[in-house]
Amino acid sequence: MKNTKPLSDIEIAQQVQLRRISTIAEKMGLDPEEIEMYGNYKAKLPLSLIDKDKVKNGNLILVSAISPTPAGEGKTTVSIGLSEALNRLGKKTTVVLREPSLGPVFGIKGGATGGGFSQVLPMEDINLHFTGDFSAIEKAHNLLAALIDNNLQSKTNNLGLDARTISLKRVMDVNDRALRNIVIGLGGTGSGIPRESGFDITAASEIMAILCLSEDLDDLKRRLGNIFVGYTFDKQPVYARDLNAEGAMTALLKDAIKPNLVQTIEGNPAIIHLGPFANIAQGTNSVIATRMGMSFSDYTVTEAGFGFDLGAEKFFNIKCQSAGLSPKAVVITTTIRALKYHGGAALNTLTVPNVEALVNGLPNLEKHLENAKLYGVTPVIAINKFLTDSDEEIAVIKELAGRLGVKVAMAEGWAKGGEGALELAEKVIEVVEKSQSSFKPLYRWSSDVVTKIETIAKNIYGAANVEFSPKAKRDLKTISDLGLEGLPICIAKTQKSLSDDPKLLGRPTGFTLNVREIEIAAGAGFLIPITGDMMRMPGLPAHPASERIDISAEGNISGLI
Amino acid sequence: MKNTKPLSDIEIAQQVQLRRISTIAEKMGLDPEEIEMYGNYKAKLPLSLIDKDKVKNGNLILVSAISPTPAGEGKTTVSIGLSEALNRLGKKTTVVLREPSLGPVFGIKGGATGGGFSQVLPMEDINLHFTGDFSAIEKAHNLLAALIDNNLQSKTNNLGLDARTISLKRVMDVNDRALRNIVIGLGGTGSGIPRESGFDITAASEIMAILCLSEDLDDLKRRLGNIFVGYTFDKQPVYARDLNAEGAMTALLKDAIKPNLVQTIEGNPAIIHLGPFANIAQGTNSVIATRMGMSFSDYTVTEAGFGFDLGAEKFFNIKCQSAGLSPKAVVITTTIRALKYHGGAALNTLTVPNVEALVNGLPNLEKHLENAKLYGVTPVIAINKFLTDSDEEIAVIKELAGRLGVKVAMAEGWAKGGEGALELAEKVIEVVEKSQSSFKPLYRWSSDVVTKIETIAKNIYGAANVEFSPKAKRDLKTISDLGLEGLPICIAKTQKSLSDDPKLLGRPTGFTLNVREIEIAAGAGFLIPITGDMMRMPGLPAHPASERIDISAEGNISGLI
Repeated sequence: MKNTKPLSDIEIAQQVQLRRISTIAEKMGLDPEEIEMYGNYKAKLPLSLIDKDKVKNGNLILVSAISPTPAGEGKTTVSIGLSEALNRLGKKTTVVLREPSLGPVFGIKGGATGGGFSQVLPMEDINLHFTGDFSAIEKAHNLLAALIDNNLQSKTNNLGLDARTISLKRVMDVNDRALRNIVIGLGGTGSGIPRESGFDITAASEIMAILCLSEDLDDLKRRLGNIFVGYTFDKQPVYARDLNAEGAMTALLKDAIKPNLVQTIEGNPAIIHLGPFANIAQGTNSVIATRMGMSFSDYTVTEAGFGFDLGAEKFFNIKCQSAGLSPKAVVITTTIRALKYHGGAALNTLTVPNVEALVNGLPNLEKHLENAKLYGVTPVIAINKFLTDSDEEIAVIKELAGRLGVKVAMAEGWAKGGEGALELAEKVIEVVEKSQSSFKPLYRWSSDVVTKIETIAKNIYGAANVEFSPKAKRDLKTISDLGLEGLPICIAKTQKSLSDDPKLLGRPTGFTLNVREIEIAAGAGFLIPITGDMMRMPGLPAHPASERIDISAEGNISGLI
Repeated sequence: MKNTKPLSDIEIAQQVQLRRISTIAEKMGLDPEEIEMYGNYKAKLPLSLIDKDKVKNGNLILVSAISPTPAGEGKTTVSIGLSEALNRLGKKTTVVLREPSLGPVFGIKGGATGGGFSQVLPMEDINLHFTGDFSAIEKAHNLLAALIDNNLQSKTNNLGLDARTISLKRVMDVNDRALRNIVIGLGGTGSGIPRESGFDITAASEIMAILCLSEDLDDLKRRLGNIFVGYTFDKQPVYARDLNAEGAMTALLKDAIKPNLVQTIEGNPAIIHLGPFANIAQGTNSVIATRMGMSFSDYTVTEAGFGFDLGAEKFFNIKCQSAGLSPKAVVITTTIRALKYHGGAALNTLTVPNVEALVNGLPNLEKHLENAKLYGVTPVIAINKFLTDSDEEIAVIKELAGRLGVKVAMAEGWAKGGEGALELAEKVIEVVEKSQSSFKPLYRWSSDVVTKIETIAKNIYGAANVEFSPKAKRDLKTISDLGLEGLPICIAKTQKSLSDDPKLLGRPTGFTLNVREIEIAAGAGFLIPITGDMMRMPGLPAHPASERIDISAEGNISGLI
């Protein structure tokens, strides 16, 4: 009898005969001498390979999603499948993705290299350390933190920093809730000044955000120097540059700034580079990586999540405006299970056909489609197919798409690789070739901070109004004092809802967005209004994924998801 | 007028035309396809390249030193120079070194890639991140720490661990004294169980020691599983394996276990791999790296420090016994400045000729020479030449060597590269070819713990006796309860003195060695009697080296030392 249990992602990945990365480079038109190999299947791409003309004239496709369930809706899988399909259709395409964060690999979520027959490889390496980018960020960040604490006790060059005002925590790419809130500097005069602090996960580091927006080493150094550290006792702002930290920090990041080249299951190039969380930072890969992909492609597929409201909103207003990018289409990844969830079905019933719940959940998709149009970019719905989806349910979504005049296609990359995303690719090509998009930002950076926040809250989230806590109001004053009102907005919000309340599913209206505080990412160059209870350091579950991960004597890893 | 300011290490390094690492591999007799490249100038060597016959029949030379001044006496520089010279004399030689720790690069000490014209390259990369080995160790260590804290609050698989007995701290490769003593788990029920803890520097991680002693992935996994975590409330020991941590930890270390190949200034192969501190762990590179070097060489030069009492003692009793290695000669790196320091000269006067102080300091050298002979290994004195050494001072050391019947040679690798170490190389060859050494360990692992400690203290350090604190006595009981009495001894002691008191210079006698406590490194497989005030997390100085480190727009780093 045939065993019908589907193969796990890692089992599929390990059956693929990997091509040497030099072969992939040759396919891109590169001399293998031009790349910097990291083992036989990974490489770093020097910034000198970016081709400005190609970037200007290339077709950039953004893949985003509806508001996701906790499991995620498969943006990465859809991005990879779409990219394979575009290559099959003769469009030279590169998929440009974020790097997985190591912490969640051992927690609940697992890795982030796609799934099924739409994966980037070698998935074990990409999910574990990869080429060391996250570690480099961690070291640069924690060096700055150590310099700050060192300065607090310095006798000869003390900046007079008021320890109570220091906002910079330390970072570590491990899910470790016990480090969220800590007291450091205990143990007597030789071991620092006692104060409250904590650790965030590395993806939440401002340096991750900075690296993603930097143009080159000089721009990186300037932004690192601009990191706001806190105030002196006489209320003067202190920046990283006041600690002469930015040179050493930039030196630590000299390789992390270079995008990484790997391959898809079908042997197409994939660029994977960095990626801060979209619920607390801009949530897309680096500007440099996007440009690198466009330098070698007719079509470049990239992704921003969680949902459109977080990832795509920041992609458009922060990244595209900052880097002069102009996307030609946006794919809204949709799953039937998530729409049923938004329509009131319980999480443990999502595999059961339920047209009523699905219909009730549709307004969430509708809102994300409307949002895409606010930026002048034409959306295409990709239904990321699950084995449990019923024909009747699929028909419901197609009917909505027809009614709204939006293109829709099944995305079966998980089960079938590029073959399963041909229809989606054709529809994307149609949108691009007919120049149906004309990207425009939602707000001007030069507007005042409150206006910018309200514009996003009302237009994208559907809020009735925005309320600023007393702390947030003090922060607005600080932003004004520091002359940072012209920065764009990067709202920290739950991904589970269009609102700031994770329980408001579907398409909530009439709600108030509550801004608890506004963080200043002066180096990254944006302001972070924090809404709801955002966590920057995840914890581990009762049975961490690490318990199932193993490696054989021959070096074969199992249990990675 | 000629500028006579000598070039800095990084300036010399940057003038060298690097060979591609594939060229170095070919020189070793390897097909470049067999190595895993990390950029163009670094590579990882798969364990399958180890040749057991070559290891058995090769000539292993250990470079150690007298008790050093805070600046270090140049073991690495001497090792590299000796290796270049041996290659010049037609002996196929590989130098096998430790990886620099990142933390001190930004503190006082700087990097650890040799100096002057005896360096391993690319020094910027080796000193910053390198191939990610330290970061991998950090992640494996901190994953275990997170699993422990996660288990403390687990409702479904709680091991009943008594938080007060947990000995494992977290690690970070940053000099950050504010993390030495911290309180974690604050912030309410969602954020862990409050308890005291702290951070050590990554080189001090037991996992570093484990990786250095492991034979292969399976042995690594077994040792990781054996890490002792603490006790349950009903006094049962808990190991990492009880948290099912060792599989994921080993997966994280799958590349870190592979030695790294780089090149010397003269284009000879250099293997650089790991390296725990010798004052708190075994202080030499990995067994795998040493074997890898021997697999491609007639002569393999490696180093262990700080002084012979710490590094070489552990090299012989722990590493050589564990791995079946048998060194053919030991080079004792000696500087005139350090001997003057031991003879009573102040640190700021060491560049001034002072024969009287030098003569007074000689007993320190004599003791290290006697110690080498206790292991049956013939010592050769290398005088690491400084510009300020006087001929008269050099003559004093040569006179001592003649009196003791010990070979002595100038080591001028810093100023002249391999050319400057030819005399030293000739003397080493003479010792090896006449088979003048017959290595024997100082103690048997099967002796009882107190006897083993006393044997080292009295024979190597010159102590009159050993005193165990009440805590140390309780630890002896624990070791006995856990059945770990058969492990070798890895004494944590200051490197500044042969005794446990950093102020006792020269060759102290009649002192008591005070064992404060005895740590159990059940995974690494040794016991760590801690003497004096050992610090496992360094701090930064008032003006950290990071302030002077910079990188240009083109990526050229300056200020690294």
